Amino acid sequence: MKLFDGGRAPNPRRVRVFLAEKAIEVPLVPVDMGALGHQQEPISSRNPLRRLPVLELDDGTIITESVAICRYFEELYPEPALFGRSALGKARVEMWQRRMEFNLLSCVAQAFRHIHPAMKEWEIPQIPEWGEANKPKAIEFLKLLDGELAQREFAAGDSYSIADITGLIAIDFMKPARIKVPEECINVLRWHAAISSRPSAAA
Amino acid sequence: MKLFDGGRAPNPRRVRVFLAEKAIEVPLVPVDMGALGHQQEPISSRNPLRRLPVLELDDGTIITESVAICRYFEELYPEPALFGRSALGKARVEMWQRRMEFNLLSCVAQAFRHIHPAMKEWEIPQIPEWGEANKPKAIEFLKLLDGELAQREFAAGDSYSIADITGLIAIDFMKPARIKVPEECINVLRWHAAISSRPSAAA
Repeated sequence: MKLFDGGRAPNPRRVRVFLAEKAIEVPLVPVDMGALGHQQEPISSRNPLRRLPVLELDDGTIITESVAICRYFEELYPEPALFGRSALGKARVEMWQRRMEFNLLSCVAQAFRHIHPAMKEWEIPQIPEWGEANKPKAIEFLKLLDGELAQREFAAGDSYSIADITGLIAIDFMKPARIKVPEECINVLRWHAAISSRPSAAA
Repeated sequence: MKLFDGGRAPNPRRVRVFLAEKAIEVPLVPVDMGALGHQQEPISSRNPLRRLPVLELDDGTIITESVAICRYFEELYPEPALFGRSALGKARVEMWQRRMEFNLLSCVAQAFRHIHPAMKEWEIPQIPEWGEANKPKAIEFLKLLDGELAQREFAAGDSYSIADITGLIAIDFMKPARIKVPEECINVLRWHAAISSRPSAAA
């Protein structure tokens, strides 16, 4: 088994943090995304969408999409549970994972890709107005999240989950996207500091 | 238990089709999205993101996000399995569900929301250039999907899954978004006709 990895990019890091939380070691094959390595072999034949990460099993089976790769490992190694326990617990993790993804990570990514000069050849056409429109969406969601995190330790409840991983990656991605967590979001800041201090965050 | 439903909108229909495939009956509470009912009570206090559908359990617990609601029911009523079987099977469904969501449904939704005159008060600011940029992305994905569907019956393998439901909803949403499945995508057309003929598609 090997994991084609994309270094600092948000989605590859999502999987590495997940594996670190589970203490699973998978051999990594580094791909230089700065040199557009994800658009060439050995990636392009393995993932026609030309994105990272890509997991290749020993028999050549390919799994792409960061959350799908995480779910594969969750099924193989259920503990610690990062997709929740019980029907309601799993639904809550899915709900917050999706909220983090659609209302935060995705907005931050759009702002980055449509505004940052380095993304001109990645996002065609680059539409700065669309990038700017995403910034207030991200801020609005952070305010909502702040009220939620006033009531509990982690995004989806009292246990760390993949929803926290997606949130961590999104907030760290705000730096290159030039969006700041509002100072009044003290619960978001407390939560982000806590999940950043876990050893997995360095993965 | 009750499900606050949004009628013809894509996400509420996703959950209705899922429930129909499982033969689960949940009392529906219709909400008139045309009259912006999702932005008012009884929705706004139940889902701060002001979106539908919203599932309310008997004890008042709220689950939002269509896929999270579907996962809740999958856990309660595992058969027929719509999120896959085995670690690899579940990962494949997750992979295709996400590809359908990010590379098709989301592109179609952006095209609709940023171009259609009726969406002017829903999507602020409406950016037609961004809407147009999404149309070729959807078409490109359909061509990729066509090659995949040449090799198997359903999106994620030999069994119908939530990835097919997301695909069905996305393709049907292409009509108001004014995007057409390319005529040469014969496998996509065959697959769409097949999943449209299932009784669940009328849900």
